[in-house]
Amino acid sequence: MAGGDWSYHLRGRPSVDVYFPSDRSSTIKDLLRGYIRRATKMLAIVMDTFTDVEILCDILEATRKRSVSVYLLLDHVNLNLFVEMCENLQISSSHLTKMAIRSVQGETYCAKSGRKFTGQIKEKFIIIDCTQALTGSFSFTWMSWQVHRNLAVLFKGSGVKPFDLEFRRLYATSKPVSTFPAQTPPLDVDQPLGLRSPTQASQRRVHTPTCAPARHTLAPLAQCVFQRHTTVSQPFIHQRSFSSNYAARNLGRRLQNFYGGVNGQPDGQFLRPLTDFSFVNQQDAKPQ
Amino acid sequence: MAGGDWSYHLRGRPSVDVYFPSDRSSTIKDLLRGYIRRATKMLAIVMDTFTDVEILCDILEATRKRSVSVYLLLDHVNLNLFVEMCENLQISSSHLTKMAIRSVQGETYCAKSGRKFTGQIKEKFIIIDCTQALTGSFSFTWMSWQVHRNLAVLFKGSGVKPFDLEFRRLYATSKPVSTFPAQTPPLDVDQPLGLRSPTQASQRRVHTPTCAPARHTLAPLAQCVFQRHTTVSQPFIHQRSFSSNYAARNLGRRLQNFYGGVNGQPDGQFLRPLTDFSFVNQQDAKPQ
Repeated sequence: MAGGDWSYHLRGRPSVDVYFPSDRSSTIKDLLRGYIRRATKMLAIVMDTFTDVEILCDILEATRKRSVSVYLLLDHVNLNLFVEMCENLQISSSHLTKMAIRSVQGETYCAKSGRKFTGQIKEKFIIIDCTQALTGSFSFTWMSWQVHRNLAVLFKGSGVKPFDLEFRRLYATSKPVSTFPAQTPPLDVDQPLGLRSPTQASQRRVHTPTCAPARHTLAPLAQCVFQRHTTVSQPFIHQRSFSSNYAARNLGRRLQNFYGGVNGQPDGQFLRPLTDFSFVNQQDAKPQ
Repeated sequence: MAGGDWSYHLRGRPSVDVYFPSDRSSTIKDLLRGYIRRATKMLAIVMDTFTDVEILCDILEATRKRSVSVYLLLDHVNLNLFVEMCENLQISSSHLTKMAIRSVQGETYCAKSGRKFTGQIKEKFIIIDCTQALTGSFSFTWMSWQVHRNLAVLFKGSGVKPFDLEFRRLYATSKPVSTFPAQTPPLDVDQPLGLRSPTQASQRRVHTPTCAPARHTLAPLAQCVFQRHTTVSQPFIHQRSFSSNYAARNLGRRLQNFYGGVNGQPDGQFLRPLTDFSFVNQQDAKPQ
């Protein structure tokens, strides 16, 4: 796994940008949605909680309109919240073309009493087109954007490499979600993201519960980031402000564009989750 | 606040290192404890949950033996867990010399129904001697180190500057904790960390619930990190492995060194929290 062509990682100038909340708490979400909307090749996402309808809509738009391949790894604890969101939106696996949704989990602890329990995936990041990696303390939830205070770190160029390696480690240990059977060929964990050439060996590794050899081999590589140029970025300057009204006006139309109203549902059907769904997520309930 | 002497930020080579779990999940904790133990000047910590007795012991050792100034900002939601840990260890404010512990919180949301609630501080980082800043998805809890999967990002040199600015923004909006009255002079939020020259103006700003002007002024600065040199680091190579047994053998002796057994408690008194305290934290209970 240490091999593979890394040349694509050198696109763009290597840089690291740190984002803290400015006077508007939604700017990090604006940044994230901007990168998702500009994605043209692939999105690799590791997230603990995903209940944000607007971000899901952006991802669906990327898969349907720009044929972007999406690999989504969700922590097993709050996976049910994502499934419930899709059910509320009447989104089935048939709508999730070019999108692989799998479950990941932390280490399993065995107590002296014999009790066992499994930890969570706290690391969260998204790789965009293999050229940018955005990580931080945010989750894809209403609470995270509106009331919690988060930071985000954006890696570009060769800084993406350790996230690429880590994503393939997680993917190799991930498990399929019965609700969402794979619509895309399995990721070749032996090749960097974006260079997909599935082999029997790689497919076997994908479905192996653990991938210890790969983890040992890659650990040293994943600990270093190369910085080669001086960069100064102030991306918030060009960020377009976001409002819920904007989403409410456009969400129904955008979803209907995807599915052509095959469900025979009015836009209201698609708008409802914006106000009601958040109650499904007790952890991140939006008060009315 | 945009002024001040930033020269100390240029110590060492600017670099950014990314840490993912290797075969041992405790390596990130080893890295963190190593930096705390090497601190000689100050520690500025922003954390959501702090229930790790060993890390508290490292911090107390730094304040007592090396006169390191510690500024600890804890999220208001789980602040009670830290207070309970100190009570179980019979650590009072008189023991926390050169240590300022304050409470921080996220944005307050006002619903149409009139209901209000306040968010949390999800961003977590620690600034060591103004020359390194370690951020990531980890919390100071047993669960975080043992079963959850985390990542960490280490900034050095000029990469510390945005964290310095963010810490002073948070400190300016923080509130004192009644259980731990300030043992140190208030932080001068007008000066970079490590350049403490309290003024009436700065002291007023410290106790102001919000610091909007500073936030507006600093927001653009806090969004950029300068990278000047090519660096490759593999810090795990020199990390000493950590075991709970090691902590169990040494925790009681180290605490007794601090307080000289004034409480008349045997080492067992200090060891007990290692096994029992975790039950106080229901969120991060260590099973037996």
